Amino acid sequence: MSDQSCSMKEALIFSQRIAQLSKALWKAVEKDWQNWIKPYDLNINEHHILTIAYHLKGASISDIAKFGVMHVSTAFNFSKKLEERGYLRFSKKENDKRNTYVEITAEGEELLLELMECFDPEKNAVFAGSAPLRDLFGKFPDMVEVMAIIRNIYGNDFVDSLEESLGNLDREFDEEDGKLKKAVAHQKV
Amino acid sequence: MSDQSCSMKEALIFSQRIAQLSKALWKAVEKDWQNWIKPYDLNINEHHILTIAYHLKGASISDIAKFGVMHVSTAFNFSKKLEERGYLRFSKKENDKRNTYVEITAEGEELLLELMECFDPEKNAVFAGSAPLRDLFGKFPDMVEVMAIIRNIYGNDFVDSLEESLGNLDREFDEEDGKLKKAVAHQKV
Repeated sequence: MSDQSCSMKEALIFSQRIAQLSKALWKAVEKDWQNWIKPYDLNINEHHILTIAYHLKGASISDIAKFGVMHVSTAFNFSKKLEERGYLRFSKKENDKRNTYVEITAEGEELLLELMECFDPEKNAVFAGSAPLRDLFGKFPDMVEVMAIIRNIYGNDFVDSLEESLGNLDREFDEEDGKLKKAVAHQKV
Repeated sequence: MSDQSCSMKEALIFSQRIAQLSKALWKAVEKDWQNWIKPYDLNINEHHILTIAYHLKGASISDIAKFGVMHVSTAFNFSKKLEERGYLRFSKKENDKRNTYVEITAEGEELLLELMECFDPEKNAVFAGSAPLRDLFGKFPDMVEVMAIIRNIYGNDFVDSLEESLGNLDREFDEEDGKLKKAVAHQKV
């Protein structure tokens, strides 16, 4: 068996495996995500854009498209809708007049925090499906293989930005009682 | 920190990680898949339905919906289109008059084999992104974590059926020259 023909078979089988698995996983994630944000009259793209604008503390439309894995026109159109609802602010930078930047407003931040507060893992199929792995290994799966593949496809900055946003989220939880710091501060006002 | 609040934070961070990763992976898979089948005037659902009908050697519409992770109406409508193009045959079973079954025709099988023959891993972003892992570990990633999560969400029969179809594919390659047995047989006719 030649190397090339062997790797053709291997490549085809691997491609079919990853295609089926990633489709099934994404469909489950998508359903959970939709159920979570539905009461807030947001779609997945809108919520994703808000999250990116929040973590990047201002982002260009092409940042949104890149980190949100969506078309530039999708990024622009849904950002516009979020601006109309007062959750985002559009601006131009002094040193970069060509690109449009979006920034999250106080209302947008409040909405995101509210959403995090009402997140209920018990209603989440992917969480339930991963819980046995957590029980077995003492932590949720790291998805290192997927992470490495994504790093090779989308580049280091994609994965680094994801890690940074998860790190931010980690620090934003109050270590005392596990509640979101900002949300707690907000409720006190 | 209470157990519950700790796991809220953990759950939220894990959910966001898996959501971003699975979205990015699926979008890359989807693009590769579309590029592969585009010259054959098929969409992903249609190709997926053909593959399922082929591997199951006849499937009900609800099998198609289940294993293809699509709505029953999507499964039905695209199966109908494939029937109109002569790639699928609809039937009722003697002992089950209520369900519609689909079977792949000789033309449908030929189309699938042609597609496998023209599969070019070099044009595939997910293959390219996984190749460094193959170089490092000597094989493509098994995706065991994803597999376990999918098994918990969709059930044993979902994953078993996937493994079976990949096993079939494996056996259908001629061990001598790495070409598809059926395709070779077909070309000889």
